[in-house]
Amino acid sequence: MNIVVLRLGHRPERDQRVTTHVGLTARALGASGMLLASDDRGVIDSINEVTRRWGGNFFARLVGSWKQEVRKWQDSGGKVVHLTMYGRNLPGVLDEISGTESVMVVVGAEKVPPDIYQVADWNVGIGNQPHSEIASLAVFLDRLHATDRLEALTQEFQGGTLKIVPSGRGKIVEEV
Amino acid sequence: MNIVVLRLGHRPERDQRVTTHVGLTARALGASGMLLASDDRGVIDSINEVTRRWGGNFFARLVGSWKQEVRKWQDSGGKVVHLTMYGRNLPGVLDEISGTESVMVVVGAEKVPPDIYQVADWNVGIGNQPHSEIASLAVFLDRLHATDRLEALTQEFQGGTLKIVPSGRGKIVEEV
Repeated sequence: MNIVVLRLGHRPERDQRVTTHVGLTARALGASGMLLASDDRGVIDSINEVTRRWGGNFFARLVGSWKQEVRKWQDSGGKVVHLTMYGRNLPGVLDEISGTESVMVVVGAEKVPPDIYQVADWNVGIGNQPHSEIASLAVFLDRLHATDRLEALTQEFQGGTLKIVPSGRGKIVEEV
Repeated sequence: MNIVVLRLGHRPERDQRVTTHVGLTARALGASGMLLASDDRGVIDSINEVTRRWGGNFFARLVGSWKQEVRKWQDSGGKVVHLTMYGRNLPGVLDEISGTESVMVVVGAEKVPPDIYQVADWNVGIGNQPHSEIASLAVFLDRLHATDRLEALTQEFQGGTLKIVPSGRGKIVEEV
């Protein structure tokens, strides 16, 4: 399964930390990359720096028009899932989504352009309570991988310079 | 299962949004409440405001000493899980944790007091890659509920004034 995250509605003055969390969550839970529909180079750089140090092939890049990215994705056979608290609750829709080969996951900040509700193949709530787009993305990716019998948490990230040795107490980091 | 989240290392000047996301994620994914070891009334108020509008019994409150809260919890038979990228990876430790009746989930910001690694019953990584404490909490709660055969995303929240009607397109909110 190829999964790319598209981040919408990012405002550089207030969303930098949250969008960075979105990108790192996407990477840690097995997405291929994140597209950011905004002009904020700093967020992209800090995500790519994590990839450089910790390995793997995750990409993060800016895009000009989110609509064009969505159209390109759908034209080449991919499907688009928009995560929103107003959507159909995940447990009722996951079966429909599973088996899709290429999934673009759209993650909005507080305000998203209304069009996204129309162009998405699915509008999906991770529950229907207000919470966090980071949490929503995490649960969605974790459960989507599970439908493919993939364990999102034990992927290998090749080629970085740092690696954690999991430990019951304290911090063990190896340089590789 | 009774689950309470303890948020450590919160700095009012920069962590307000992330800590608010931590609290709302805890609520949406079935924790009973959040304790915040910091002096930031604003975060608590905004989480409690969500509960007032959207229902349920989630509590959020400030605490003075995190150590005292941990000790009280353990003295009354509860267990403490500290989420950290350095910990044992969740898939290998979830079985040990499941069946625990009272779980305190400790969620740090960038810096946490080193003692927490010692007093926790488990130090657990949601994967061993750097990502987001919000994502970590979300996946942990989702998987922990699943060990109890609970669906975290379909709980009912009684007593609020707003309720979403899940929808394939657009936003439907009812006043109740």
